[in-house]
Amino acid sequence: MKKLINQPEDVVKEALAGMPALHPELIRVDYENQVIVRRDAPIRGKVGVISGGGSGHEPMHGGFVGRGMLDAACPGAIFTSPVPDQMLAATRAVNGGAGVLHIVKNYTGDVLNFEMAAELAQAEGIEVASVVTNDDVAVQDSLYTAGRRGVGVTVLLEKIVGGLAEAGASLEQVVALAKKVNEQGRSMGMALTSCTVPMAGKPTFELGDDEMEIGIGIHGEPGRRRVKLAPAAAVTEMLATPIIEDLGLKAGERVLAFVNGMGGTPLVELYVVANELANMLRAQDISIARSLIGSYITSLEMAGCSITLLRLDDELIRYWDAPVYTPALRWGV
Amino acid sequence: MKKLINQPEDVVKEALAGMPALHPELIRVDYENQVIVRRDAPIRGKVGVISGGGSGHEPMHGGFVGRGMLDAACPGAIFTSPVPDQMLAATRAVNGGAGVLHIVKNYTGDVLNFEMAAELAQAEGIEVASVVTNDDVAVQDSLYTAGRRGVGVTVLLEKIVGGLAEAGASLEQVVALAKKVNEQGRSMGMALTSCTVPMAGKPTFELGDDEMEIGIGIHGEPGRRRVKLAPAAAVTEMLATPIIEDLGLKAGERVLAFVNGMGGTPLVELYVVANELANMLRAQDISIARSLIGSYITSLEMAGCSITLLRLDDELIRYWDAPVYTPALRWGV
Repeated sequence: MKKLINQPEDVVKEALAGMPALHPELIRVDYENQVIVRRDAPIRGKVGVISGGGSGHEPMHGGFVGRGMLDAACPGAIFTSPVPDQMLAATRAVNGGAGVLHIVKNYTGDVLNFEMAAELAQAEGIEVASVVTNDDVAVQDSLYTAGRRGVGVTVLLEKIVGGLAEAGASLEQVVALAKKVNEQGRSMGMALTSCTVPMAGKPTFELGDDEMEIGIGIHGEPGRRRVKLAPAAAVTEMLATPIIEDLGLKAGERVLAFVNGMGGTPLVELYVVANELANMLRAQDISIARSLIGSYITSLEMAGCSITLLRLDDELIRYWDAPVYTPALRWGV
Repeated sequence: MKKLINQPEDVVKEALAGMPALHPELIRVDYENQVIVRRDAPIRGKVGVISGGGSGHEPMHGGFVGRGMLDAACPGAIFTSPVPDQMLAATRAVNGGAGVLHIVKNYTGDVLNFEMAAELAQAEGIEVASVVTNDDVAVQDSLYTAGRRGVGVTVLLEKIVGGLAEAGASLEQVVALAKKVNEQGRSMGMALTSCTVPMAGKPTFELGDDEMEIGIGIHGEPGRRRVKLAPAAAVTEMLATPIIEDLGLKAGERVLAFVNGMGGTPLVELYVVANELANMLRAQDISIARSLIGSYITSLEMAGCSITLLRLDDELIRYWDAPVYTPALRWGV
């Protein structure tokens, strides 16, 4: 195992400590509860927006805490759900009296723990609503999930819904937009290599030198099928076609195209995939009105990529374009 | 070789085509000359700022083309200098009558070709000045370089100098600031793994499972020494101490801390390194006034990191903070 770490058990704690060291103007860390909090939270009268999940997917979610996106994030151990106490602490920390939205990726542990945290917070008189993302078209049920997994749309949803919350919308409005974004987006990913969880010390799965896994989950859980290596054009087609079909995208529509790296794939390869995706969409007269490219929802050092397409309308574009100022996404301010 | 590509010989061309597909509002591509150009170039009365170098270091330099940073970038083949004709085309494309700055990393091929391009442009009546970055403290001479190599400072310089050029400064002022930034910054990098150049099809160098290379160059060229794997704390110390000593940083000074991934290293590991770096600097009473973390100057899928420290003053902070709108760096607009 070759990693830039100290002791495997300290990775999450130490990475967490690195965040306020580099971004003191944006965030603070509650080390006792292991929560990353927007520096100026809670904001009176603003809906608080939080998320969380296992670590190993950086920058998601901690890198998205800041103005115009998340008010707090709860990182669990690597690939392990955070606990309800963390989520409760985050909910309290961002409660400005207008309610708190929990953005939850559809993994059984995350869903159960966020439900418990919501109940505990509600018992304290904090209004809480939840939205569960489930955009992965690869598989219906999976190793850690009943139903579809929540993946790339989560990043886009946090940005768009964070923009609306920043503009002073009510919890009801924020929930409605969150549900809309989740419904309008679909994703699928693939891996060229496995990743190695530091505490495990060996690859999560084995993949032959001539193989790749299509439909992989962000914890290395199996996908649709294991196939022989293929050119980027074929890979892109394998990922994008099910997304386009599932979304029912039609000629003349606009999308946000999100080409995501799994952590070990360099940007030059993502642009090769982006070119193939753009060619596919152009051929179907679907226009890329907005884009995001880079490694934003990762699986440690896994090599591979995912594609997310989000059907856009003027409302989604408005809040995508709204100012954001976080460690990992920053524009307009 | 596991890569998201089509034919190895098409990687650069196809990645280049992916850029305007995702960022049509920012850039255009001159495919004949293989140049990425800011969409609204040339800008009358503004100093044009260009750079270029081998591909495989993405997002550098093409990802830095846009408002407030570069006006054009010339990507060569992977790890191969662009040719003078590309640089001349870029110089023409951004010439708004106020002169053009060439930002050149100190590699023999880049330096010679940019010199030739400058002469050709000057013969056409375009005023050209050059600055050569040479911030790598690892080695004095190297496989492709006489003198120090140009690495991470190049990214910071392109941002800061681009900010000054955007503000309407003269070529003389832009050159002066570029030299100052180069003098105030130092870098050093390390690798846990090699990378594989697509056309070569095999790793550039071999590194044992228990080894790492300290002082590596961005093309995989050898560094200071090959050592046994060590914890992130020791790695950070091996990189940062020579930088701090070479810069002569003293208690009370402010720096921009740039923790850079080599392409295959995930962000969570970079934050572990950032935490170690912050601890080292804190112990010496040097404050991190600005930061950049992520994979901005890469070596394909190499796993590893580099650290760059830039001594800051109010002028450098002003132009670092100035608005920038490029595919890879974006804030303030």
